[in-house]
Amino acid sequence: MSEPAAKMDLEQLRAMLLIAPFHQWLGLDIVELTDETLILEMPWREEIVSNPMIGSAHGGILSALIDLTGLYTINALGGSARATADMRVDFHRPATSGPVRAIGRVVKLGKQLSVAETRIEDAGGRLLASGRGAYVG
Amino acid sequence: MSEPAAKMDLEQLRAMLLIAPFHQWLGLDIVELTDETLILEMPWREEIVSNPMIGSAHGGILSALIDLTGLYTINALGGSARATADMRVDFHRPATSGPVRAIGRVVKLGKQLSVAETRIEDAGGRLLASGRGAYVG
Amino acid sequence: MSEPAAKMDLEQLRAMLLIAPFHQWLGLDIVELTDETLILEMPWREEIVSNPMIGSAHGGILSALIDLTGLYTINALGGSARATADMRVDFHRPATSGPVRAIGRVVKLGKQLSVAETRIEDAGGRLLASGRGAYVG
Amino acid sequence: MSEPAAKMDLEQLRAMLLIAPFHQWLGLDIVELTDETLILEMPWREEIVSNPMIGSAHGGILSALIDLTGLYTINALGGSARATADMRVDFHRPATSGPVRAIGRVVKLGKQLSVAETRIEDAGGRLLASGRGAYVG
Repeated sequence: MSEPAAKMDLEQLRAMLLIAPFHQWLGLDIVELTDETLILEMPWREEIVSNPMIGSAHGGILSALIDLTGLYTINALGGSARATADMRVDFHRPATSGPVRAIGRVVKLGKQLSVAETRIEDAGGRLLASGRGAYVG
Repeated sequence: MSEPAAKMDLEQLRAMLLIAPFHQWLGLDIVELTDETLILEMPWREEIVSNPMIGSAHGGILSALIDLTGLYTINALGGSARATADMRVDFHRPATSGPVRAIGRVVKLGKQLSVAETRIEDAGGRLLASGRGAYVG
Repeated sequence: MSEPAAKMDLEQLRAMLLIAPFHQWLGLDIVELTDETLILEMPWREEIVSNPMIGSAHGGILSALIDLTGLYTINALGGSARATADMRVDFHRPATSGPVRAIGRVVKLGKQLSVAETRIEDAGGRLLASGRGAYVG
Repeated sequence: MSEPAAKMDLEQLRAMLLIAPFHQWLGLDIVELTDETLILEMPWREEIVSNPMIGSAHGGILSALIDLTGLYTINALGGSARATADMRVDFHRPATSGPVRAIGRVVKLGKQLSVAETRIEDAGGRLLASGRGAYVG
C-alpha cells in the first residue's frame, strides 16, 4: 500500500471488539491505547474455569485473549489484521481470579503478514501467559 | 517412572473431561478412542461466534479444543499430561457451523514433557484448524 | 490462481535444493517423493555438533531441516511456497549420528499461506524432532 | 530449588558458548550482558546463504541463533536451561549481510521450564527475525 492504514481510536476499537458475541460473553473491554501498546481487560465468570479445585481459567480462554489482543493491537497501531494465521501461547502460571489484563505490542507490521505479541497479567501484575500471533492483512 | 501410566478408558476420560466448567459450557463429548487417536465433538452455541456476518467460531474456541484434546489424548494413550506448557495453532478455514470434531494424536510421550497434535474438522471432514501442544507430566 | 501449480519432479526438486550454498554444505539430498510425502536425507559432518560430549547435532540444524523440508514439500505436492513465514519445532531426542531423514507432509495448501509438518528420524526410525512451518506463496 | 542458580559472567558464558563446534563454525561471540538482555553477534560466512541471488542467510541459521541465544540468556540471567524443548520463529526480512545481532530476554524463569524471547537485527538495527523458546532446566 502506498499509504499507511489510519490508526483507529479507542471508541472505534471498542465498538469493533464488541461486534463479536464471544467477546461480549467474556465481558472484554479495551482500557488503554498508547503509541506502543493496547491493553484489554477481562473480568471473571465461572464458566471459564478449567480446574475447579484451584479455580483456574481455561488455557483456551487465555489463548483467545492472546489471539484477539494481537489482532486489535495491529489494527490499532497502524497495521491491518483481518484474520489470525497462526499463534503460539506459553502458559506460565494458573490464572485463578479476575480481572486479567492482556497487553499487546507490535512485533512487525507487514503487507501480507503482521506479528504481535501479548502478555497476560493478573491484577497484581504477575505474568500468567504470553504469546504471539501472525495475522493476515 | 519404572512403569507406564495405565491407559484410561472412555468412561473415565468423559468423567474427567466434564469436571471443567468450561468443557461443560462448550458441551464437549469424547466420541471415540482408538490405539492411535482420541476424538472429541463440540456442538455449537451462539456465544462462541467471532464474526457474526459469517457466523464463524472464535479462534480462541478452536485453540481451546486443540489445547485440551492434546492433553486428553496423552492421558488416554499411556502418557501423563497435567498441564499445557505451550501450544501452536494454525487456522485454516472459518468454522461456520457445528458440530466440529477434534482428532488428537500423540507425537511423543516423555517423562517431563509430551507432545500431541490435533486436527479440527467440520461435519464434512474439512480441516478447519490444526496444531500441537507440549504438556508437562 | 485459477490453475494449480504444476507438481515438480524429483530431479527438478534436487536441482532447486542445491542452489542454496547452505544445503550444499549440509550435503542434503531428496531421496523420495510420493503423493503424500517428501523425504530428505542429511549425512553428518562434525561442524554441526552442539554438545561434543554426546556428539549431538545442533537444534538449529534440525530446525533448518524442518524449515526447508516443509517448503520443498509444499512446492513438490502442488502448492507454492516462496518463503517461510514462521515455524515451530519440538525437540524430542538428541540426534547423535547421521544420516538423519526429514519426512515432510502437507497440512494445508492455501493461496496466501500453506502449512507443512516435518518429522526428523534417525537411521533406526526414532523420532528426533518434529514441527511445522507456515509458508507464503 | 531452595537457592537461585548463580548468574554466570561474560567470560564464563563465552567459554561455554564455544564448546559447541557449530558455534565456533558460525563465529559467534557474546558481546553484551546486562540485567535484562544478552546480546550475541554472528559475523558472516558464505556457506550460510540460502538464496544466492539476494545473498540471504538461511532461515535455519536465524533459527539456530534464536534457539541458542534464548538458552544462554536464561543461564546468564539466573535461570537454568539445559536443553531446548520447543521453539517458535517468525521471519520478518531477509538477512542479506552480516554481522547480525541476537538480543535475548527472559520471559519467565521456571523450575521445570523457562521461556526466553530473542530478536535478530542487522547492523542497522532492522528486525530480521524474532521468536521464543521453551527450555528445560
